[in-house]
Amino acid sequence: MAADKKKRRRPDSNSDSDSDNRPFKSKLKPDPVILQTLKNLKSACSTAASTSKTLTLTDVGLSSTCREVADLPIDEVQSEIESLALNIAKSILSGQGFSFSVPSRSSANQLYVSELDRIVLKDKSSLRNFGNVSTVRKATITLRILQLVHQLCTSNIHVTKRDLFYTDVKLFQDQSQSDAVLDDVSCIVGCTRSSLNVVAAEKGVVVGRLIFSDNGDMIDCTKMGMGGKAIPPNIDRVGDMQSDALYILLVEKDAAFMRLSEDRFYNRFPCIIVTAKGQPDVATRLFLRKMKMELNLPVLALVDSDPYGLKILSVYGCGSKNMSYDSANLTTPDIKWLGIRPSDLDKYKIPDQCRLPMTEQDIKTGKDLLEEDFVKKNPAWVEELNLMVKTKQKAEIQALSSFGFQYLSQVYLPLKLQEQDWL
Amino acid sequence: MAADKKKRRRPDSNSDSDSDNRPFKSKLKPDPVILQTLKNLKSACSTAASTSKTLTLTDVGLSSTCREVADLPIDEVQSEIESLALNIAKSILSGQGFSFSVPSRSSANQLYVSELDRIVLKDKSSLRNFGNVSTVRKATITLRILQLVHQLCTSNIHVTKRDLFYTDVKLFQDQSQSDAVLDDVSCIVGCTRSSLNVVAAEKGVVVGRLIFSDNGDMIDCTKMGMGGKAIPPNIDRVGDMQSDALYILLVEKDAAFMRLSEDRFYNRFPCIIVTAKGQPDVATRLFLRKMKMELNLPVLALVDSDPYGLKILSVYGCGSKNMSYDSANLTTPDIKWLGIRPSDLDKYKIPDQCRLPMTEQDIKTGKDLLEEDFVKKNPAWVEELNLMVKTKQKAEIQALSSFGFQYLSQVYLPLKLQEQDWL
Repeated sequence: MAADKKKRRRPDSNSDSDSDNRPFKSKLKPDPVILQTLKNLKSACSTAASTSKTLTLTDVGLSSTCREVADLPIDEVQSEIESLALNIAKSILSGQGFSFSVPSRSSANQLYVSELDRIVLKDKSSLRNFGNVSTVRKATITLRILQLVHQLCTSNIHVTKRDLFYTDVKLFQDQSQSDAVLDDVSCIVGCTRSSLNVVAAEKGVVVGRLIFSDNGDMIDCTKMGMGGKAIPPNIDRVGDMQSDALYILLVEKDAAFMRLSEDRFYNRFPCIIVTAKGQPDVATRLFLRKMKMELNLPVLALVDSDPYGLKILSVYGCGSKNMSYDSANLTTPDIKWLGIRPSDLDKYKIPDQCRLPMTEQDIKTGKDLLEEDFVKKNPAWVEELNLMVKTKQKAEIQALSSFGFQYLSQVYLPLKLQEQDWL
Repeated sequence: MAADKKKRRRPDSNSDSDSDNRPFKSKLKPDPVILQTLKNLKSACSTAASTSKTLTLTDVGLSSTCREVADLPIDEVQSEIESLALNIAKSILSGQGFSFSVPSRSSANQLYVSELDRIVLKDKSSLRNFGNVSTVRKATITLRILQLVHQLCTSNIHVTKRDLFYTDVKLFQDQSQSDAVLDDVSCIVGCTRSSLNVVAAEKGVVVGRLIFSDNGDMIDCTKMGMGGKAIPPNIDRVGDMQSDALYILLVEKDAAFMRLSEDRFYNRFPCIIVTAKGQPDVATRLFLRKMKMELNLPVLALVDSDPYGLKILSVYGCGSKNMSYDSANLTTPDIKWLGIRPSDLDKYKIPDQCRLPMTEQDIKTGKDLLEEDFVKKNPAWVEELNLMVKTKQKAEIQALSSFGFQYLSQVYLPLKLQEQDWL
């Protein structure tokens, strides 16, 4: 059988034919030296975690003017909905009809808080009255979504937003309507969307030195071959995380993930490797945060050297405006920008033909990012981004392949770690 | 911890509050009856596999007028490239320069063979001469790709097409050029693209009663929680498949996959559940075929009731025109169309508001499909497709949620299996 024949020849970590000519290869120190660097990073990270607690809205004096949701256990969501229903009944019996007080999720109601380093929702609300022609439809949809979520609580199953829409197409008319009200319901109940048992399709994968439970099954991510383990769509069924990793390597694209996974990079420099294959989805963001929080590991990010790479980093780090009400649960603090950074292009002598000229749109996005608070608070990032916009050059992680397919795993990353070259 | 609290309340298979009112619920026979149906299906499938051998181009007398590639072990690919290089050297030394004979992959050179039930490549070739101004560039690219693939063989690592492009941006200029020549190289060497160790990013997932090895790690897909196992990008590192499943359930979308995975449908009616999350990618197609061939299991497909659902089924079953040279390895014979079929819409009383009107483009695609050989050879499929085009109605798998979130796993699929309602 072909599969068996091939298995005999395993990838050889020193097999690149031009190993010795590769730039900077000679600068690499022995692995134990690099490992010591990583051990220091990890212990600094745990110390920081134990001495400094994560700031909350209360700590920065914003608890009365901003709101945020919490991860509630399913029975609390259920009783929250039941007490909402009781209040509605009382209100109707007292002859006043009923209405919902719905937090506004518009951009005017959003705020970046630098002490927290994430976007939060301010406390503006509006009344959604069943007895008013202009709001009766939305009030009805809200009630229906509450009822469906209550059903999900009692049977404790998870569904997608699409499933939810299809339970009452006549009422919702369009999925964008049920989706929007679902976010409203999160804010009304004061819990995360995952707590409502409504999940998004997962697309992230994880591999490396992590053991965790997914819906009761123990998963050992060192034994997931090259494909890795699909990140579960429902974070509340994930638990019991254990790891001997020294850091988490967050990778933008799956090609780089594949390279590192096949080379079992996570065994040479113990780590957990995770990717959302492009734009971060909710499941991957929740999973990354959970790992960071439970394992107290530093997070190093490997993204393309272009404005979108930095944008992706910012979504993991500070959240998206769209879901600012849940930024506390979705964001991972203190992500380090490992590479590919604009200054790496010259530093690692990326050949000119592997760099791409930035388009007008790229440059505009880059300049816009320079105005964002999450970039401004980090002067070193501003410097890198300024360099990108000035040189008008970008490069993908894949550009490193110009030095050989395994340059990423055998030279670039080890050297970056050795030099502690993260920002 | 919230995760632990939630775990205590497990999904209950009889928990849908309106269980008894759901249409057709009363028609369901006890599970052992349905299981017997599936056992019969499975043994019919194994018998067919043992008595009828899979037809090849030789069997249908086309071996001299059509060509196809084979899954070659890595050392054979390597020696094939080495002998190509030797021939080139000889040709140069004899003063004739050199050229490649490259099989044409244009649509004029493609053929649907009904006996094989797949699209194959005819034997037209053209000469790619290094000594000719119009072909020198492509000949150079071809030689460079052969050299890079040879490098992959000696180090036995896998890379993506994007990696390949970045090793020589100056020469390739654009990824579409290196991609196209890579397919040419498959045809020249006479092996599959996977044999060249160049893989596409995976997006498929698998869960259920399957154990297999991925890059040396044993994976038990009954213990993959709700997220499932990511299908490995490189099929040649996949082996040792074992299963006690009665059939493979091929699912178009991940929402349905999630529902079945959370409900552990694969334990109630033992099966392997697989999805490519939409358009089938090469890795999932290879994985499905490998399961079917090694385990001799029937394959039942659950797709949307629209022209694209049928199109997706056809790509799994008969291949895509783009990769017709490799249809023997990429296609899975004898896939049964389980649902959602156009006739199901009335049969299962899908409410009107959950059906969607087909767009002009949908109807055109549907009519085009009626002209395709792979549809025509199956009169029952033609009838279904005619019904779809006539009623101008389509429906997603998710439309079943209108009867409750678990209708798919608790009523629709069990009843379909019980009634042997596949085509």
